[in-house]
Amino acid sequence: MAKLDERRIIEIFQSGFGNKKFVSEDVEMFKIGKKFGVIKTDTLVASTDVPPRMKIADVARKSIVASVSDFAAKGVRPHYGIISVSLPRDFSESKILQLMRGFKAASREFGFKILGGDTNQARELVISVTLIGLSDDITPRKGARDGDIIIVSGPFGFSAAGIQILMHKKRSNQEFKKRAARAVFRPIARLGFGIQTRKLVSSAMDSSDGLSTCLVEMAKQSKKQFVITKIPSTSDVEEFAHSNGLDFLDLVFNGGEEYEIVATTPKKNLGKLRNIAKLQKINLIEIGSVQRGSGVFIQKGPRRIKILDKGWIHFAN
Amino acid sequence: MAKLDERRIIEIFQSGFGNKKFVSEDVEMFKIGKKFGVIKTDTLVASTDVPPRMKIADVARKSIVASVSDFAAKGVRPHYGIISVSLPRDFSESKILQLMRGFKAASREFGFKILGGDTNQARELVISVTLIGLSDDITPRKGARDGDIIIVSGPFGFSAAGIQILMHKKRSNQEFKKRAARAVFRPIARLGFGIQTRKLVSSAMDSSDGLSTCLVEMAKQSKKQFVITKIPSTSDVEEFAHSNGLDFLDLVFNGGEEYEIVATTPKKNLGKLRNIAKLQKINLIEIGSVQRGSGVFIQKGPRRIKILDKGWIHFAN
Repeated sequence: MAKLDERRIIEIFQSGFGNKKFVSEDVEMFKIGKKFGVIKTDTLVASTDVPPRMKIADVARKSIVASVSDFAAKGVRPHYGIISVSLPRDFSESKILQLMRGFKAASREFGFKILGGDTNQARELVISVTLIGLSDDITPRKGARDGDIIIVSGPFGFSAAGIQILMHKKRSNQEFKKRAARAVFRPIARLGFGIQTRKLVSSAMDSSDGLSTCLVEMAKQSKKQFVITKIPSTSDVEEFAHSNGLDFLDLVFNGGEEYEIVATTPKKNLGKLRNIAKLQKINLIEIGSVQRGSGVFIQKGPRRIKILDKGWIHFAN
Repeated sequence: MAKLDERRIIEIFQSGFGNKKFVSEDVEMFKIGKKFGVIKTDTLVASTDVPPRMKIADVARKSIVASVSDFAAKGVRPHYGIISVSLPRDFSESKILQLMRGFKAASREFGFKILGGDTNQARELVISVTLIGLSDDITPRKGARDGDIIIVSGPFGFSAAGIQILMHKKRSNQEFKKRAARAVFRPIARLGFGIQTRKLVSSAMDSSDGLSTCLVEMAKQSKKQFVITKIPSTSDVEEFAHSNGLDFLDLVFNGGEEYEIVATTPKKNLGKLRNIAKLQKINLIEIGSVQRGSGVFIQKGPRRIKILDKGWIHFAN
């Protein structure tokens, strides 16, 4: 039997639910009076999402970060959360306490209230986090205009490197290992930045499915060409890739599980965005520009590399 | 290591989240202007919630019925749903289509719109359904008054009998088997009845954790004694129990997975309730009355049997 990838599965559900004019977004929305209810569910599964030696409290936090990051990219604050926890039978009381404390700490970190949830027994740990907010509007994936600058809220590649180190025994120096593991265990979500910059950016998307997936989707929805002139990473990620026989561009563009915001902005707003980033200690990187046309390209001198959607797909590995 | 029951786990999460004044309810609520957002998540796990030979579309439907039933008991219509689906790797495209069609049909049956969701890979099928509604108020679990009549929206015991037949090879005649299996595979949620009777009842709760759990919780929250004078079941459930060496009262009071509404109502509203039930072809059963005191008792002539909370607890089996 052919394995299905996640995209095909999503396609089946979307077409089935009759959303023919469906525009794929980071969050779901529904009208409440003149405002929008904003809602997002994200599920963490132990066997696919949790690398060895990850602390239970960090697992709890990461299950929340995934949805928080979607809210961040849309410029919306989540107000409430509900959490469904399915636990294996041998999950100890001490682990449950760690899980609870992780949820609690994360809800404080991101400023929302946990309303409740449900608990179940399952063959492995599965956590579904649903966040809810209220907003006048969201930052769309669609909306990039000619001449806009493409920005990201931090460097890419650490999380993919971390997975390589933790799960595939790739080697690195201690300092790099620490940073890469932290990107996996304690990812940052850019909630404050997303909310403060909502009216300054023309489009945005959460990058957790991979930078390439994100850029391809935004260019497609905006009907524009995205030209990347700067690879948003660091020399130590590049060195790590080379010394381990890994593809640097693959780590950066297709790694996934990085909760940065990718956005486009009119040039005139760049100064304000830089100030907000500076105050929040965010390393804002301008990676390229929006042009007429379609597709995503890396421009390296006279050479162009076409970036295809090869981001992280749970079902394709 | 001691196995934890679901109650202890819920206790850990509730105390941890700091809800000291927490009143346990079928749904969670949050303020939106002058109204309440009403939200509920319920998770279905294949290894614990799906008996053999259950159709995929029925599995999808049942995952939705669980949350719909909570809305029903609270008298609130769910407007939107989001569904998180975790699938094993070998789940075929045909099965995914059946799942999707099951979700779609159930959303039509209960009149809400599926906004979206997420898909994941896991060791077994896990479905989390989150429903959202908007309401002025809900029917509380707390609110039964002296002299109120206790009613249920249908007979109990078929679902527990069905599980005994399907999973433990207990014997019955074909007609009973069909009805009992249907109670397991295609449970009914009393959404219309719950919504239409919200202002007529003084308290209500969904019975899916078991009739005894439900009665004990309502009596406790209302600070009243519930006296049961009629067992809400049928002679064929009783015959099935006796011929298989099972405890009839156990099937009726502790079976669980029955999505009936248990409610209390002032006597003066009984006529209206009977009319609404009749129009909806619901077999409304008056099972007893609310009195001063505490606890739940079955009154059989001069004898009293104390009903304890022995409802279905996922982690206690």
